[in-house]
Amino acid sequence: MIPSTPGSTTHPSDPDGARRIVVVGGVAGGMSAAARARRLDERASIIVLEQSDHVSFAGCGLPYQVAGEIAERDALLLHTPASLRASLDLDVRTRHRVTAIDRAARTVTVAAEDGAYELGYDALLLAPGATTVLPPVAGLDHPAVHTLRTMSDLDALSARLAQLEAEVAAGRTAPLRAVVVGAGFIGLEAVEALVGRGLTVDVVERADQVLPPLEPDLAPLLADELRDHGVGLHLGTSASAVVPQPEGADHAVALELTDGTALDADVVLVSVGVRPASDLAAAAGLALGERGAIRVDADQRTSDPHVWAVGDAVEVVHAVTGATGPVPLAGPANRQGRRAADSMLGHRRTPQAPVLGTAIVRVFGLTAAVTGPSHATLAAADVVHEQVRVHAAHHAGWFPGAEPVHVTASFGPDGRLLGAQAVGRAGVDKRIDVLATALRAGLTADDLAELELAYAPPYGAPKDVVNMLGFVAQNVLDGTMPQWHAADLDEVVATSLVLDVRSRAEHAGGYLDGALNVPHTELRERLDEVRAAAAGRPVAVHCASGVRSYLATRVLLTAGLDARNLSGGWLTLTTTPRAARTLEGVPA
Amino acid sequence: MIPSTPGSTTHPSDPDGARRIVVVGGVAGGMSAAARARRLDERASIIVLEQSDHVSFAGCGLPYQVAGEIAERDALLLHTPASLRASLDLDVRTRHRVTAIDRAARTVTVAAEDGAYELGYDALLLAPGATTVLPPVAGLDHPAVHTLRTMSDLDALSARLAQLEAEVAAGRTAPLRAVVVGAGFIGLEAVEALVGRGLTVDVVERADQVLPPLEPDLAPLLADELRDHGVGLHLGTSASAVVPQPEGADHAVALELTDGTALDADVVLVSVGVRPASDLAAAAGLALGERGAIRVDADQRTSDPHVWAVGDAVEVVHAVTGATGPVPLAGPANRQGRRAADSMLGHRRTPQAPVLGTAIVRVFGLTAAVTGPSHATLAAADVVHEQVRVHAAHHAGWFPGAEPVHVTASFGPDGRLLGAQAVGRAGVDKRIDVLATALRAGLTADDLAELELAYAPPYGAPKDVVNMLGFVAQNVLDGTMPQWHAADLDEVVATSLVLDVRSRAEHAGGYLDGALNVPHTELRERLDEVRAAAAGRPVAVHCASGVRSYLATRVLLTAGLDARNLSGGWLTLTTTPRAARTLEGVPA
Repeated sequence: MIPSTPGSTTHPSDPDGARRIVVVGGVAGGMSAAARARRLDERASIIVLEQSDHVSFAGCGLPYQVAGEIAERDALLLHTPASLRASLDLDVRTRHRVTAIDRAARTVTVAAEDGAYELGYDALLLAPGATTVLPPVAGLDHPAVHTLRTMSDLDALSARLAQLEAEVAAGRTAPLRAVVVGAGFIGLEAVEALVGRGLTVDVVERADQVLPPLEPDLAPLLADELRDHGVGLHLGTSASAVVPQPEGADHAVALELTDGTALDADVVLVSVGVRPASDLAAAAGLALGERGAIRVDADQRTSDPHVWAVGDAVEVVHAVTGATGPVPLAGPANRQGRRAADSMLGHRRTPQAPVLGTAIVRVFGLTAAVTGPSHATLAAADVVHEQVRVHAAHHAGWFPGAEPVHVTASFGPDGRLLGAQAVGRAGVDKRIDVLATALRAGLTADDLAELELAYAPPYGAPKDVVNMLGFVAQNVLDGTMPQWHAADLDEVVATSLVLDVRSRAEHAGGYLDGALNVPHTELRERLDEVRAAAAGRPVAVHCASGVRSYLATRVLLTAGLDARNLSGGWLTLTTTPRAARTLEGVPA
Repeated sequence: MIPSTPGSTTHPSDPDGARRIVVVGGVAGGMSAAARARRLDERASIIVLEQSDHVSFAGCGLPYQVAGEIAERDALLLHTPASLRASLDLDVRTRHRVTAIDRAARTVTVAAEDGAYELGYDALLLAPGATTVLPPVAGLDHPAVHTLRTMSDLDALSARLAQLEAEVAAGRTAPLRAVVVGAGFIGLEAVEALVGRGLTVDVVERADQVLPPLEPDLAPLLADELRDHGVGLHLGTSASAVVPQPEGADHAVALELTDGTALDADVVLVSVGVRPASDLAAAAGLALGERGAIRVDADQRTSDPHVWAVGDAVEVVHAVTGATGPVPLAGPANRQGRRAADSMLGHRRTPQAPVLGTAIVRVFGLTAAVTGPSHATLAAADVVHEQVRVHAAHHAGWFPGAEPVHVTASFGPDGRLLGAQAVGRAGVDKRIDVLATALRAGLTADDLAELELAYAPPYGAPKDVVNMLGFVAQNVLDGTMPQWHAADLDEVVATSLVLDVRSRAEHAGGYLDGALNVPHTELRERLDEVRAAAAGRPVAVHCASGVRSYLATRVLLTAGLDARNLSGGWLTLTTTPRAARTLEGVPA
């Protein structure tokens, strides 16, 4: 039940004394809460206040509408105040902005076109979302500069693109150019959208890889895909200024980068992140976390027992590391809304799960997805773990169309899965969802090895990618297969015999300087040769993906040699930044 | 370590006294065991005895080669004795059949082309697989009759099809016709393959639905897909005789059915199931289970401590019900082989998981998949459960190409997921794999509601199908949404007011006799009308899929009416056999 203090609220608009729930923000979490509240309490007065023109719009669909993949802009408007009134008896007020909360009086002050008013509440739900972060770049007020988070943003960008396309139709010869600032999930969606719209696109990213949350050995796969689609990559550098170009120039602006580059652009799209829109909550004295997000308990309740908060503006607890901070993801926001309504209305409490940060992005033909913390995040949090890599076909290799799924995952010393990431052309979403489920359930390498996933040739393999990941992790963790990592290449090369057990033809296509090539099928006969070459040093084995070198490592260990297998093999070596730089000088 | 009895074994072929592992059966489980054994013990003598011409062939690929989807027959031969010798130092002997086991002497008798011989073992692994069951049908020895389990089966069927196609090329005018007997997983793959090969196909199934393990409300979706591809369905009947047709007749045989039908056929493919090939084990006195499968412990060890067994021939424990029996699936076979090798060689034991029976099949454009026991299996085992149904889009509905995933799942009163099944055109394999993982981990409806699956518009929805399943199950189990089932239609109609809350246009397209149509958006205003019509009876609400009727049910419950929501809505009603029959007479 809503906490009720004698005489706390009078609501002239609710003469029958029904409880009043006020929701601030009518997208994702806010609307989920309002809808769930109605389903649980048919009699409540539920008022949703949304400062923009739109509620329940599909924010995640904006890039796809830019590209035309979603043909109609209005397809993104999932509900209207009228439809929500008819279906759920919600009082939805767009262009109504809450400017203040009086927690003592339990009222909010609302600014609307026809003036300000006060509104009492029994329960207040804050779902203000996040606001786009703008980097400290001169000239961002130029009309060529856009963001892409709201329907207004979409409309402004669409208008600009239409204007540019009209110029082309009218004879403009200079190609249309765009620069996307920020190569995170949304930035990459925007890159693909603008390429799809026919523009020539550059992307600027401060980190030295695209999609910074992705493992460094997986990100280069995306970079290659972007380059293959004509996208210019500017990594490890930042935008410093938007410089308007003179009338009659080919392009509207030049975007200057800190590395001295200047990129012509007709559109600059800024996507460097968001921050919690917690100003209202802060002004009302609600507790915030360190990163400015609204602090909530397991029931989404803020430091005020009459106020709940959900979505991009609130602090969550991250799984595995226990770190706290905001997580701007649609899925958690929706589920938080549902649970907040349960809490407001005294419904059965359900467990709040720590956030895994599961996320996915399509980059042209590739998919990249993550769940749980990365190696870097685990290392920063001092969580002991082993990294395990698998490159395995998304369905039976002998069935047409098999595509490799590249997985990098982390396991604790007790075998527990801690996080996983995958990139590939098919089956990536399935494996990350299975791993996200496993992570939520606290499954171990042994459990992954025994997972019974659906197999018929068009769908998987008798030993699925996830089973393989479990097998490899078992072997690493129980000592059956000691491994070495591409990131340690320099040290390994300096101290070990590198043994390349690929075929002669594969070896001839590129190899590590000083590596001994013994195809794995010849290893048993040439053991003495390997032993002599090792001369007491450890043997660092590799093949292309790690499978044949596993067999070789077992042969060598049995022969009494100190052998280790390269995690992920040559495939990972060539995509691991430091190792890949070393490889640039090798014979090919 | 392999159990070692003093003086137990002498192996003239192993002068250095290495332990000898003999593997009977060189596919799936047997070969997995042999390969794992080699990786764990470089010095062992490992001999694989395979009675057929082939080891490590891709049995699951056979139907796809018939259709030509896998172009080359030899693509199914994954390894040869030579490649296995080179890579894993295995001694693989094809066309060597084990005819007896002398457990006391620890020897097997082997029949080969150049005579019989005895072979000693320290550890014996039995992976004999299963054999095709032939139903009691007269005339099965006709050359038109085929099975499809081995490479020899494939070669024989391919030869027959080639001969028939040659007849067509030579001017034959009668269309090529095939009948598939048995509409299980393999039977349906064979149907699709033969249609893909250009034949006109009928399928005969003794049960009154296709794919008998599938829930009765999902199977009709497959039946429609089969009919849409020109397949003739003969359900609830059996083949009784293969009657050769006279020389010069259009077709080679007529297949007579118990319902009196006679089906012309040039090819009859029998696929009614398999049974464990446990004769050798039985003759050796090893313990068998009730259904003739070899009994093994958690380490795959048989009743003889020197003998292990894996694959289609062994008994497994089924998850949830605890029932025992064989399960002819490739995934479990492979993993059993790996664990058996671990056990033989004293490697770290890993948990043996009860079998979920996860399985999947492509039926033209549809996918059907199951994990865990069905409603019928649970009911037969007296496991108390609630069935929950969801029809939800496989990715965001506003993103192009969204396809419904039809899910039927069972939950225990404690909320635990007990089993799940799904049918649809996209995203079915992913959802079943997530649910198979959840089932393995013992997750509940609350856990499913909070699963954090990967969302971007091309891949899913902020509230994924699996989350929705969790939400609905929560609502059913905690009483928020009482439900009724299509299977109980007659009783419900007799005792309740049926309230159809779809739009007038939907209602006009077909409705339950006597149903009151009140579109859900009008319900609040027309409550008195509904109350009057109910006249004290319960109100059985439905819409198309169960979503709008859930809202309506909540409104009615608040109004003090005894309301229940139809699980799965009209969509499920029209595919539930008994209910669908009732509907045949309704206005459309």
